[in-house]
Amino acid sequence: MIIDCHGHYTTEPKALHDYRKCQIAGLTDPAQAPSKASLKISDDQIREGLEGAQLKLQRERGTDLTIFSPRASGMGHHIGNAATSEEWSRISNDLIHRACTLYPRNFVGVCQLPQSPGVRPSNCVAELERCVKELGFIGCNLNPDPSGGYWTDPPFTDKWWYPLYEKMVELDVPAMVHVSSSCNPNFHFTGAHYINADTTAFMQFITSDLFKDFPTLRMIIPHGGGAVPYHWGRYRGLAQDLGRPPLKEFLLKNVFFDTCVYHLPGIELLLKVIPADNILFASEMVGAVRGIDPETGYPYDHTKRYIDAIDWLSVADREKIFHGNVKKVFSRFAAQDTTR
Amino acid sequence: MIIDCHGHYTTEPKALHDYRKCQIAGLTDPAQAPSKASLKISDDQIREGLEGAQLKLQRERGTDLTIFSPRASGMGHHIGNAATSEEWSRISNDLIHRACTLYPRNFVGVCQLPQSPGVRPSNCVAELERCVKELGFIGCNLNPDPSGGYWTDPPFTDKWWYPLYEKMVELDVPAMVHVSSSCNPNFHFTGAHYINADTTAFMQFITSDLFKDFPTLRMIIPHGGGAVPYHWGRYRGLAQDLGRPPLKEFLLKNVFFDTCVYHLPGIELLLKVIPADNILFASEMVGAVRGIDPETGYPYDHTKRYIDAIDWLSVADREKIFHGNVKKVFSRFAAQDTTR
Repeated sequence: MIIDCHGHYTTEPKALHDYRKCQIAGLTDPAQAPSKASLKISDDQIREGLEGAQLKLQRERGTDLTIFSPRASGMGHHIGNAATSEEWSRISNDLIHRACTLYPRNFVGVCQLPQSPGVRPSNCVAELERCVKELGFIGCNLNPDPSGGYWTDPPFTDKWWYPLYEKMVELDVPAMVHVSSSCNPNFHFTGAHYINADTTAFMQFITSDLFKDFPTLRMIIPHGGGAVPYHWGRYRGLAQDLGRPPLKEFLLKNVFFDTCVYHLPGIELLLKVIPADNILFASEMVGAVRGIDPETGYPYDHTKRYIDAIDWLSVADREKIFHGNVKKVFSRFAAQDTTR
Repeated sequence: MIIDCHGHYTTEPKALHDYRKCQIAGLTDPAQAPSKASLKISDDQIREGLEGAQLKLQRERGTDLTIFSPRASGMGHHIGNAATSEEWSRISNDLIHRACTLYPRNFVGVCQLPQSPGVRPSNCVAELERCVKELGFIGCNLNPDPSGGYWTDPPFTDKWWYPLYEKMVELDVPAMVHVSSSCNPNFHFTGAHYINADTTAFMQFITSDLFKDFPTLRMIIPHGGGAVPYHWGRYRGLAQDLGRPPLKEFLLKNVFFDTCVYHLPGIELLLKVIPADNILFASEMVGAVRGIDPETGYPYDHTKRYIDAIDWLSVADREKIFHGNVKKVFSRFAAQDTTR
């Protein structure tokens, strides 16, 4: 079984985008604010968006199941206020739930949180609990920069975030570190902001005792861990200079990396420096990069091919990466359906 | 000959730090502002700082010459205003000049610029010209985020920066993309802010026509290019999706990467995916990481060892990386002393 731990709903029905446009317009002109009842999406519209995209690619690539969450760039935590974010998160999460209900063998849900810059993350506890307990979701995406590129909230290691971590630990769900779109012209969203956030979060973990305070808290750093594996020597050395324990024993019980790295040399490096116990298969399809690599004739984001091409990877490690680690990190996944 | 293109003066005499402390104190209490005449540093004090550190390491590691600039984290462009930055830049650059004059075979100068958040970079033209024409410097360090972690100035590709680029082209000097310290608690300076800035600048180049406007402008992205080589497939794919030309022909006449990557697998990846024509040897010693790697018994930042260990690297490519490319990118270096 092959589980893709990182997929976003990037083929949403048009009605969802229209609703969001009206929601945003309503921030300045309340007459345009939509009623929830106005959002009408049929099951067939959901099927249509998924069949020709995520489901087709699962079949073509031989992956079985995707851990599925709302479009990351669509979370837009910097837009409006906490109420805007809460309404939008509920709608987005409900739609993920419907997709998972229509295709229970193909998708398992992960939620977006109603974060808002300057607002304490304790405001996310209720929606997380609803998604896990009522919708059967198995994790959340957590944005280290709700401002969308200005980084004005406290770091992940600040007590500001602790009420949310307490709930994550209680529910036994991990978070994927994932920013949303960037409203800062310095940062292209998928080319700079995403990767920077991954790198930033890891370095925050190095400089703190977060996982001493929460020994069972689990964080997945997507996009192959940002710059971290490429600079693994730098991070080992910085930790050492700062008097922290060796990284493997210090962070790798709690921090995991996905395989969203879109070329073979990158995946080779990832698998060389990070223990297989800490790597989760992912492609982020349909996501940031959609083209065909002219050098290989295959899609850049067909990451399974790169892993398949590494002949020194043991069968046991391959199985950990493709599904074993998912069941460990997303412990509710294992509990939910033992036939999988 | 082996040239290290990335070294900072991180062993400055104590008097320099004392001066800076007074300069900063003077921002709120003018009575504490120091007079320039109060800064007294003897040649012996300069020798003392360098002999036991950079010069010793050059000898031990078998490198010949370092392209030398003021401490990057010390630039502190976010502190005070443009006048603060100008005074501090002149002092810092003058000290680099003295080090280069004392050891002309070991150091060549690169300057810090008097950047200040919200201030047009045209304010840097005079200091760049002074350093190149009067002090014999061969390049500059250019900070894409003078705010120190809040990214409030326009991206590198905005016309905001063009007057400085015009001067760089006229003087025929490259810039190394290098932020300074971070005053944003989200970003550890050497562990997150530096690497993020490298990645960010490259993505800015992808989304613009900067090098169409300045075909001879040359930028060095340090720290192995941030996350870029590790995610080379992502960047090729993003460029393709955005309708940009293939990266090699689009950017690699103007953009270069250094080798400040502190473990062998990272250097292997860099040399595998980036053409040797675009890689410049560097260690950043004495810099961000100072310890001994227990896995090898050698300093993390002894990057020459990693390059030496790559047996598939041709002699011609090795020579390009160790010195050939420096003479191409820093064209004033070649012009300055043909005996080197």
